Amino acid sequence: MNRTRLDRLLGGLDTDGYLLDASQDDANQLYLSGFTGPDPFLTLYADGEVHLLVSGLEYGRARTEAAADTVERHADYDYEYGGREDRYDMYARFVADKDVESVSVPPRSPVGTADALRERGIDVVVDGDDALGEVRAVKTDEEVDAIRAAQRANEAAMRAAESLLAAADVAGGGDAPNDGDAAAEAVEPGTLLHDGEPLTSERVAEEIEVTLLRHGCALDETIVAGGAQAADPHDRGSGPLRANEPIIVDVFPRSKATKYHADMTRTFCVGDPDPAAREWYDLTERALEAALDAVEPGATGEEVHAAACEVYEAAGEPTFRTDPETETGFIHSTGHGIGLDVHESPRLSSGAGELEPGHVVTVEPGLYDPAVGGVRLEDLVVVTEDGHENLTDYPLEFVV
Amino acid sequence: MNRTRLDRLLGGLDTDGYLLDASQDDANQLYLSGFTGPDPFLTLYADGEVHLLVSGLEYGRARTEAAADTVERHADYDYEYGGREDRYDMYARFVADKDVESVSVPPRSPVGTADALRERGIDVVVDGDDALGEVRAVKTDEEVDAIRAAQRANEAAMRAAESLLAAADVAGGGDAPNDGDAAAEAVEPGTLLHDGEPLTSERVAEEIEVTLLRHGCALDETIVAGGAQAADPHDRGSGPLRANEPIIVDVFPRSKATKYHADMTRTFCVGDPDPAAREWYDLTERALEAALDAVEPGATGEEVHAAACEVYEAAGEPTFRTDPETETGFIHSTGHGIGLDVHESPRLSSGAGELEPGHVVTVEPGLYDPAVGGVRLEDLVVVTEDGHENLTDYPLEFVV
Repeated sequence: MNRTRLDRLLGGLDTDGYLLDASQDDANQLYLSGFTGPDPFLTLYADGEVHLLVSGLEYGRARTEAAADTVERHADYDYEYGGREDRYDMYARFVADKDVESVSVPPRSPVGTADALRERGIDVVVDGDDALGEVRAVKTDEEVDAIRAAQRANEAAMRAAESLLAAADVAGGGDAPNDGDAAAEAVEPGTLLHDGEPLTSERVAEEIEVTLLRHGCALDETIVAGGAQAADPHDRGSGPLRANEPIIVDVFPRSKATKYHADMTRTFCVGDPDPAAREWYDLTERALEAALDAVEPGATGEEVHAAACEVYEAAGEPTFRTDPETETGFIHSTGHGIGLDVHESPRLSSGAGELEPGHVVTVEPGLYDPAVGGVRLEDLVVVTEDGHENLTDYPLEFVV
Repeated sequence: MNRTRLDRLLGGLDTDGYLLDASQDDANQLYLSGFTGPDPFLTLYADGEVHLLVSGLEYGRARTEAAADTVERHADYDYEYGGREDRYDMYARFVADKDVESVSVPPRSPVGTADALRERGIDVVVDGDDALGEVRAVKTDEEVDAIRAAQRANEAAMRAAESLLAAADVAGGGDAPNDGDAAAEAVEPGTLLHDGEPLTSERVAEEIEVTLLRHGCALDETIVAGGAQAADPHDRGSGPLRANEPIIVDVFPRSKATKYHADMTRTFCVGDPDPAAREWYDLTERALEAALDAVEPGATGEEVHAAACEVYEAAGEPTFRTDPETETGFIHSTGHGIGLDVHESPRLSSGAGELEPGHVVTVEPGLYDPAVGGVRLEDLVVVTEDGHENLTDYPLEFVV
């Protein structure tokens, strides 16, 4: 945690303190408290100090683990497990005990707590500018190392996925040596086969996820999407994969030890992509290079996004800049910050502000159309004093 | 989803509608919308209908996947990606468009949205009684089947963990056949060994998690805690495991397909537990049986909790009932509801209300003291018309 930046941004707000009511599932809470509590607890930043209020069940672990100046437990406020209003009374006393009469809270803080504190005379102001998110956006060297380590695990997982695809046979129709397998006869020609069974998105995702677990990472979801599914950037993909079609593999694991994320996307094709898909891949590789070239301190997220858009637009592909209504072409932003959250500040999109050293962002242009499918390529980079360092070490090869 | 119960509980509130602003990470949102959107979106229940508002990027998938009566997208309100206030303007128009002037929201809804809607003339009331959580607490047969299937995967994972423990050698001191291994010489006597290396909590957790992935489940965390670590019910465990000590294995996976959770805990000991640990195990097995016997419709969660407490109290072990300040003994509630959330309504604890058919709850008594370690046993049951059905099929055996 960058304490100087924290003091400057949170200390600069017009309230006496900054209050979080959340569990470790909330990245702000994990960052400010340094504590992995599974149930919601309070963290108050006030006068340069971080104060925690946890249940008795968490107290011992919080004192050992948390990056806080003080840790208190419910019993310190004579609260026994009981009603909702008693709990809010305790919260108000905890805040008042630190000489705090007004608190800023993030926009997605619980309204129940905010309303209850207001009823108890504490001014609760929504911090619409997300000061704590802006603190988190600039990483320390230690945080960058955590993200780099997660990306190493991610590369191992991508290799596992690519190997599974490269080793696949093709059912029925001629491209693969082992197309006469008995089990293969029943499936549609062109379907990818693994051990004679159709190779599905789910099977490839399983291989990715098992590999990540073996490398100390966990994850909730993985995208392995081929054909028309790949034309929807948020489709996770399901069912048998097919030869000669682009297959998007987008993996965003989280280190179990550090809780920091990585993110990478590659697009593969088993067999022969048609000319349109091949052109999309080449364009997207150029858009990735152009956007990466633009990443440096002082450049805006809007400029990086523009660099990717210009490659596509010059080739006649629609983007949100040329057609805000388009449902095909380049239909998302160029990238996002990553850290304890998989999506955080800064953005690489229209209207996005200046990049600073320590920002860690994905760069991920792509093209989508149900008639062709989807192609996306994504690297992960950290902004340095004089440019950027690419944290991704994985080749760009379409046909496997 | 039980639509009759939904209409009764949400329709019975004093507002025109029930509003959610959350992503699929929120169980209420997943339940009411039936949509797996990774970014926050709006769901409004009003006049017996469910209405969704999603971004253009999610629109196609939401129309196909969501369990909603209507799905609209941002463009329907002429909103382009932009400022915060524009977004709240769109939210207010979406709500007003359904003839809704007042909405109930869950206590943990985002305060930024609540305040913004209030500024725009919509009355936002915190639903402190958590009506939607009460709807979710009673499961349909389909939901029970989803939980049962996740518990089958959990049993496979528990077997994998138990096998790894049962096959372990013991370093240095006599119990195991293979204690002369070269790598073992350096480790502390009594340490469990796997392939000559210390067997750690992390290694057992990895085995559990890989097994779960192979069975279609994912999970964020697993508890494998031995020795003094097991005396803290929320400690996930780390480092080498040891012989002759209780090892708590608590696994709470989620089905990737259905999103429903399961939950089970067993306590194992490799070698010879000391008499105190053995007595704790026997007591906890009796507390589990007593609490299970008490689970039936009409019984309160408080009564089920009391049944477990009485076994411990009769043996002289402290509980929160006899000593609210105790840090050893039975220091948590007897169980919790489970479903799309791993912790949800109803509770099995002091003050908890009546059980109903369709409630799915864990029953998990345990004893904790850093001097002995920890013992916990947990089954998962569904309340039926005339009692309960245990959804767990795994033996209770301490010494492996």
